[in-house]
Amino acid sequence: MKAYKLHAPKSLDNFQLGDYDEPTIHDKQVKIQVKAVSLNYRDWALANGWFGYPGEKLPFIPFSDAAGLVTEVGAAVTKIKVGDRVAVNFFPEWHAGPFSLQKTRFSLGGSTDGVLAEYVAFDEESVVKVPDSFSYEEAACFPCAGVTAWHALAIQAQLKPGDTVLLQGTGGVSIFGLQIAKLFGAQAIITSSSNEKLGRAKSLGADQTINYQEIPDWATKTRELTQGEGADYVVEVAGKLADSLKAVKAGGSIFLIGAVGGPASPDDAKSLQMAPIFMNRLQAIYVGSTEMLADLFKAFDQNNIKPIIGKTFGFDEVKEALQFMGNGSHFGKIVVQF
Amino acid sequence: MKAYKLHAPKSLDNFQLGDYDEPTIHDKQVKIQVKAVSLNYRDWALANGWFGYPGEKLPFIPFSDAAGLVTEVGAAVTKIKVGDRVAVNFFPEWHAGPFSLQKTRFSLGGSTDGVLAEYVAFDEESVVKVPDSFSYEEAACFPCAGVTAWHALAIQAQLKPGDTVLLQGTGGVSIFGLQIAKLFGAQAIITSSSNEKLGRAKSLGADQTINYQEIPDWATKTRELTQGEGADYVVEVAGKLADSLKAVKAGGSIFLIGAVGGPASPDDAKSLQMAPIFMNRLQAIYVGSTEMLADLFKAFDQNNIKPIIGKTFGFDEVKEALQFMGNGSHFGKIVVQF
Amino acid sequence: MKAYKLHAPKSLDNFQLGDYDEPTIHDKQVKIQVKAVSLNYRDWALANGWFGYPGEKLPFIPFSDAAGLVTEVGAAVTKIKVGDRVAVNFFPEWHAGPFSLQKTRFSLGGSTDGVLAEYVAFDEESVVKVPDSFSYEEAACFPCAGVTAWHALAIQAQLKPGDTVLLQGTGGVSIFGLQIAKLFGAQAIITSSSNEKLGRAKSLGADQTINYQEIPDWATKTRELTQGEGADYVVEVAGKLADSLKAVKAGGSIFLIGAVGGPASPDDAKSLQMAPIFMNRLQAIYVGSTEMLADLFKAFDQNNIKPIIGKTFGFDEVKEALQFMGNGSHFGKIVVQF
Amino acid sequence: MKAYKLHAPKSLDNFQLGDYDEPTIHDKQVKIQVKAVSLNYRDWALANGWFGYPGEKLPFIPFSDAAGLVTEVGAAVTKIKVGDRVAVNFFPEWHAGPFSLQKTRFSLGGSTDGVLAEYVAFDEESVVKVPDSFSYEEAACFPCAGVTAWHALAIQAQLKPGDTVLLQGTGGVSIFGLQIAKLFGAQAIITSSSNEKLGRAKSLGADQTINYQEIPDWATKTRELTQGEGADYVVEVAGKLADSLKAVKAGGSIFLIGAVGGPASPDDAKSLQMAPIFMNRLQAIYVGSTEMLADLFKAFDQNNIKPIIGKTFGFDEVKEALQFMGNGSHFGKIVVQF
Repeated sequence: MKAYKLHAPKSLDNFQLGDYDEPTIHDKQVKIQVKAVSLNYRDWALANGWFGYPGEKLPFIPFSDAAGLVTEVGAAVTKIKVGDRVAVNFFPEWHAGPFSLQKTRFSLGGSTDGVLAEYVAFDEESVVKVPDSFSYEEAACFPCAGVTAWHALAIQAQLKPGDTVLLQGTGGVSIFGLQIAKLFGAQAIITSSSNEKLGRAKSLGADQTINYQEIPDWATKTRELTQGEGADYVVEVAGKLADSLKAVKAGGSIFLIGAVGGPASPDDAKSLQMAPIFMNRLQAIYVGSTEMLADLFKAFDQNNIKPIIGKTFGFDEVKEALQFMGNGSHFGKIVVQF
Repeated sequence: MKAYKLHAPKSLDNFQLGDYDEPTIHDKQVKIQVKAVSLNYRDWALANGWFGYPGEKLPFIPFSDAAGLVTEVGAAVTKIKVGDRVAVNFFPEWHAGPFSLQKTRFSLGGSTDGVLAEYVAFDEESVVKVPDSFSYEEAACFPCAGVTAWHALAIQAQLKPGDTVLLQGTGGVSIFGLQIAKLFGAQAIITSSSNEKLGRAKSLGADQTINYQEIPDWATKTRELTQGEGADYVVEVAGKLADSLKAVKAGGSIFLIGAVGGPASPDDAKSLQMAPIFMNRLQAIYVGSTEMLADLFKAFDQNNIKPIIGKTFGFDEVKEALQFMGNGSHFGKIVVQF
Repeated sequence: MKAYKLHAPKSLDNFQLGDYDEPTIHDKQVKIQVKAVSLNYRDWALANGWFGYPGEKLPFIPFSDAAGLVTEVGAAVTKIKVGDRVAVNFFPEWHAGPFSLQKTRFSLGGSTDGVLAEYVAFDEESVVKVPDSFSYEEAACFPCAGVTAWHALAIQAQLKPGDTVLLQGTGGVSIFGLQIAKLFGAQAIITSSSNEKLGRAKSLGADQTINYQEIPDWATKTRELTQGEGADYVVEVAGKLADSLKAVKAGGSIFLIGAVGGPASPDDAKSLQMAPIFMNRLQAIYVGSTEMLADLFKAFDQNNIKPIIGKTFGFDEVKEALQFMGNGSHFGKIVVQF
Repeated sequence: MKAYKLHAPKSLDNFQLGDYDEPTIHDKQVKIQVKAVSLNYRDWALANGWFGYPGEKLPFIPFSDAAGLVTEVGAAVTKIKVGDRVAVNFFPEWHAGPFSLQKTRFSLGGSTDGVLAEYVAFDEESVVKVPDSFSYEEAACFPCAGVTAWHALAIQAQLKPGDTVLLQGTGGVSIFGLQIAKLFGAQAIITSSSNEKLGRAKSLGADQTINYQEIPDWATKTRELTQGEGADYVVEVAGKLADSLKAVKAGGSIFLIGAVGGPASPDDAKSLQMAPIFMNRLQAIYVGSTEMLADLFKAFDQNNIKPIIGKTFGFDEVKEALQFMGNGSHFGKIVVQF
């Protein structure tokens, strides 16, 4: 089968297509013919060698988000059958319940082989049946960015109508966050440097938009837009903790997402000093479980919401797809079709 | 009546005893003859002028923690009667439910008059009946330090047997934290620079102790004492966030207490970068509600636990009591008897 | 001032209009000129003498739900001012936090005087400012039925998109339940004996409707409409526990509302026997706190949702309004304008 | 290998020892040499044919609770190794997260083969490593009764010091409930018909005891022992819902355990009518997940608590063990040693 592997030393040039044996499955696994994958910023950062996982073994198959067709099931598999359309969870061993280091020891396309291959094999507990209403391309969008936003807003925030959520930029997590916030009847404020993207965000339901090039102090602007109170929740993907602490409501939470960002600043440290008297919470989020992925599919399916695909590439255009991600000009998810 | 007031500019010298009119009560208030107060580090920091509350009006009556005898009740009071022994909540307007800025706009002895007076007046919703098993001196220990520890461990952590809690030093919050952790059947690790204090902590139930002068890297030591996992919860009163992040378990929480501490370091900012992949939570804690105070009294009363009083002073020795607090040589709470 | 009182023995005939002194306020109270009230089934049941509260003292002013204009505030009031438009909470002493017997000892128009009077007086903690977007008539709809549905679905269920809620009939609680379920992105199934009402429910967002005259076994029908799984949550206002246990999903919850209904049947007892192996929860709901009322107002206001008023009567038509309630032909709330 | 099977029609006589092939394991399974099993009331009820599971296939190997030695592991097993001492979870497919019908479709020794055999095979996700401090006999006590009590009190009640728990009788669930309540610093009230058993319960920490033969109205007695308030939580194993509703505090919860009990009475139905105004919760509990079992082991291990074994039998005395269970004269758990 064809598959991409990221070779040592990690760089976009060492991101190479090759021919490999198809995976074999054990008794509890299913074999999946991959039909589509989606990209996350982490894939770009890994491809550039900006970070690595402890115990990383090169070369490995990159990318974490896939949807495909089940072509074979192990002898002990009972919930999935040949012909099922499935998506794969970012953490193949985090099936349910709260986070643990053990459950997250493998993350696809990082600390273990990922999904940028014609065939992949995973435990039945690691995959979720895709509702009929989603194409493979759409289904491939959910695992990393979607579950991250769901975990933050649905599980940790337990959002309710009347809450306000601040979203930063229009990447995968933020656009999922926008859609999820609106599904819960919450108010969504979103930032971008592009009025065109803000317009698209509005059409997805954003209640307020801030162009952070026109208004660099988006934190103060957020307070103004919320009668001086601040946002109940901030989905922090921009690495701007000091600003986020200024934008969040007293008693509110900031969800820290993405360790791959630039260095936290000394301002962050200083602004943390006031956190106690405003009873703020900083909750780091590291994607989530198979059960969260299943719940997210259900929430979107029942409400007829589709994930937002910014651009689609072919299997032989994966490097272009990565570079497009690197340019940061996307809105929503970037998808590769097989 | 006699009362202390802190005059401008704030300093220990401007902490003066004087004669004032007794407070009058409105229809929903009770008048309390104060019998004992306890000190918190905040009182020392305020007395030295190290910080102030927005809108602070000098002079004001300092101190937040009091217990006393009800001598008069307003016409609309229904739950408290003359002769009741009561303690006063740190936030007179945070009665129940979650934190809000509105509920915490007044904090005793800081942004409004406190309790270092022979008589004080508060809404009946702001006071709690003291169980018979506690003396006034004991009762006066609970409001700030006790409620802070309870809020962190009982409400936010929802502690359970088998969890591990790391406590820093042997001040009021940490010793309450130790007692509460043990009440929940949790494991408690506590640090101090004094082996004598660590011995006293052991006798209160501490499972493990770390002398941080002998073992400066108490964070790594905490990991060793927990089979490499780290503590589930860290009650952060020392302003050592970077170390606390090293000591806390993946998936665990750090409770940030006390905005009055020294500046957070750039290390803190840097160490926060890894928080996402360990799914840590930083939860700032700002004391709590009258309901929490009532639950804390009940928990200690039913389990026959007393708060730990390190030293008791007379009403005319308040400055000595403050200096004793400043020396940091206390274990548990410092109390002033009236 | 004019006010209705319910005299002994309770009956619709002893529901009499009279002239009374205006209430005086204590230091923490506000005086409200009532502009509109709404009716609940409880008011009809009380007016007919079908039940009474322990310690009930006749005559009393009936009805619990009011909105009006603040005309005077006590000396110690700080959050409400003359000219504010406010609504009154069902339990004047349940301001925040979890249920307690103490907080619910008084329920308006039942165990203490209610709101069917030109002027009423309540603690500032017992009232909520009405958002500008609601008329007095609309605002008067929220306190009992709205808070009950919010308490069940937002607080106890912590609803999320993808959940399914079963609502019984088209009375006040059920229609609020329908609106709240849809605000959360949940699926709503609603029953009625009238296809016309079901049509109106559809236009409010109901995903599925069941005419229980055409399909008496609505519980089995609910299972069919949910792929055999049952509803995640049942808002039980019909006194049909055995059926509700048949309609609810394994692991799901039934919210028991309204002690005034007919006798529970032996079938209920029998069907409870299977609850353990389906891990069901039966959660009784008794209206809620001032904070819940405030959150509910905010949720509706920010999402531009209005409560549904089925019919409006004049102040001199209160008995007609009650009889209209008794006929059960209403959809949503019945309101009396002052 | 030797194993007991329960043959059709279910009766104590058809509970027969036989010789069978040892189980073979699939890639994710471990093979366990059983060293000890414990009995639950359910085993007695099943052995007598008092109830059966849907889809039950006779004969089957009975009993659900086992501890033993791992003698073989499948090719894909990563967390368990040969030589590990393990206990098996009641539901082999409920590993983590909330209840679902899917996860509980198999319950050991009921709807699938159980553990009363010299060798058994289970997924590595279905077993938990036993802490060194427990013997096999002790470890075999935890799975059904222990996890049920833990699920009720630690997970659903989120017990805290100061809460009061009512326990009915001195069987496995109640004694685990007593030990767990005391671990949390809660007050425990326990009932029995035997003063000798009540004495043993006192020595395990029970704060109050009620001999229900001497005081048949134990519900009213519970109220008296709680200053008229009632118990915050009732662990309902006796099938006395009406009494339990009388014994529980307003706002409190009753955990319904054991569908195998006698018929619920019409009194139960009637008493449910008042539940709304007391905001009670009835929460059915159906054992729990592998993660709960692991947490329970940890809680007992770290606090040096052992499960209470009432009596131990040999492998050839299983019928005597069952009859002893049926007599109801045990205190704590009945264990069979292999």
